[in-house]
Amino acid sequence: MPSEFELIARYFTRPARRTVLGVGDDAALVRVGAGKELVAAADMLVVGRHFFPDDDPESLGHKALAVNLSDFAAMGAVPRWALLSIALPEVDEAWLAAFTRGLFALADAHGVALIGGDTTRGPLTFAFTVLGEIERGAALRRSGARVGDEVWVSGTLGDAALALAALNRAVPLSPGELAQLLPRLHRPVPRLALGRRLVGVAHAAIDISDGLLADLGHVLEASGVGAEIQLTALPVSPVLAAWQTHAVARRALLAGGDDYELCFTAPRSAHEAIVRLGRRLGVPVTAIGCITRAPGLVVLDGQGRPVDCEEKGFDHFA
Amino acid sequence: MPSEFELIARYFTRPARRTVLGVGDDAALVRVGAGKELVAAADMLVVGRHFFPDDDPESLGHKALAVNLSDFAAMGAVPRWALLSIALPEVDEAWLAAFTRGLFALADAHGVALIGGDTTRGPLTFAFTVLGEIERGAALRRSGARVGDEVWVSGTLGDAALALAALNRAVPLSPGELAQLLPRLHRPVPRLALGRRLVGVAHAAIDISDGLLADLGHVLEASGVGAEIQLTALPVSPVLAAWQTHAVARRALLAGGDDYELCFTAPRSAHEAIVRLGRRLGVPVTAIGCITRAPGLVVLDGQGRPVDCEEKGFDHFA
Repeated sequence: MPSEFELIARYFTRPARRTVLGVGDDAALVRVGAGKELVAAADMLVVGRHFFPDDDPESLGHKALAVNLSDFAAMGAVPRWALLSIALPEVDEAWLAAFTRGLFALADAHGVALIGGDTTRGPLTFAFTVLGEIERGAALRRSGARVGDEVWVSGTLGDAALALAALNRAVPLSPGELAQLLPRLHRPVPRLALGRRLVGVAHAAIDISDGLLADLGHVLEASGVGAEIQLTALPVSPVLAAWQTHAVARRALLAGGDDYELCFTAPRSAHEAIVRLGRRLGVPVTAIGCITRAPGLVVLDGQGRPVDCEEKGFDHFA
Repeated sequence: MPSEFELIARYFTRPARRTVLGVGDDAALVRVGAGKELVAAADMLVVGRHFFPDDDPESLGHKALAVNLSDFAAMGAVPRWALLSIALPEVDEAWLAAFTRGLFALADAHGVALIGGDTTRGPLTFAFTVLGEIERGAALRRSGARVGDEVWVSGTLGDAALALAALNRAVPLSPGELAQLLPRLHRPVPRLALGRRLVGVAHAAIDISDGLLADLGHVLEASGVGAEIQLTALPVSPVLAAWQTHAVARRALLAGGDDYELCFTAPRSAHEAIVRLGRRLGVPVTAIGCITRAPGLVVLDGQGRPVDCEEKGFDHFA
């Protein structure tokens, strides 16, 4: 059976660009340019909580990194380096080969180098820390939303949560419908290009990992403002549109986690520029409401009446 | 029951110095000075593997950070910032308060700010990433050992492993003996001041987390050299000395993990300076052998005969 060190050498060690010293010493060394801020984000995924033990390992490798890159998208920052601590119940080399294939395909696509981490035995758990850069003062913070801003989201909402609900047999999607949604659950696309181009345009941003209501709620709280959202303006996929009257689908739309789309606020004067930006990047962007002075998050239906929103975001300890 | 966000606010959010943006946004931002390299180290501790479920939480908070700071000591680097991803089986506020008390006491003692991370539900697991700085090109690497260097270690060796063996009833230490050793297991002291002062003096360094033979072996492999070690020169505590003929104690001395002492190599010309440095810092330092051109690690007994060393370091997948 290969040792911990052989596993690291075989699966996790690759030539790392822009790196003084990568995997294999006590710590990694990287240089950070002048006039930059270093950006650091961490996420942990635990078996049985964030994924199933028999999930496709290549997708897991993709997703475990993608959720961290999504945090960089939400800051408008450029990811550069990653550290991965991983607990494995046993050494399964086919599993590791597939996991690292998914991981490195995404890392390579965005120029991210794996520079360190830890491996140990334990219940399957991934803890990524991603490091990167942004120009000083340029980061898109949760606290920047201003009264009168439009609220935008990228892509479509609720697909990942609806797919998970279907896997859990909470909603009877057809096999064809499920197949359309599964990539949203297993292969989320971090909106890095969009986030990067929103620097200097958007006032605030967050990625939707806990659901629209919860994550937009974080922006409102950090910014000391409120928002009004138009339920009928929310962008939905054809599958979610077909199930929209189902309570599970409605909950997925408003409170489903795992979409990893961006939610951001920007002045009305930037509306056309944002539409053009989305078109140029091939990323749908939709204005869904506006920031208000009155605190709280109000969702309005097609007739302008407040919707009773009991749906709340995913809280890992609720 | 408090939410994930309340837990973060209550236990993990503190004023962070030298930090542009800390806990609470998608990622943290820090500035790194010109002429510096950024240093990053990650470690993961899993319940049942690295600690017991009923271990004192304050000690766990100390140890989980200490093992990462020890990596910085081994690089000669200055730790500045930490990210902690933590999985908890349930919310136990007394446990969390004690854990963070141990964590922040050590962090404060070394000027380390907690700037981010993640919390989720799962089997008790800690994944730390510590970030810091060092002057360009100054880091103590594993690969720098040169033929003729003396090999040094700090402190005493084997105490943590002997304590663990006693807890597991593999060796019948008296309660008084065990009490003397337990702090070595539960409250390891990262040798940051020593490591920092060895920059420009030592050629190579590593911290002893997997046992002397394994960790010195990493230095030899990375440096393409060998070493001869004098068994009788190894620094031992009074308790380990009393049990030194017991096979378990001997194994702890040569191959016990969790000591978190430094093992480093330096030219003979630096011998007196290193002795004075140890005295000034109040840290015992002991020359235990020398680096050889012939590959391999040879341990010699008091009569200069090679010792049969079947002991190997701790491999998490062996």
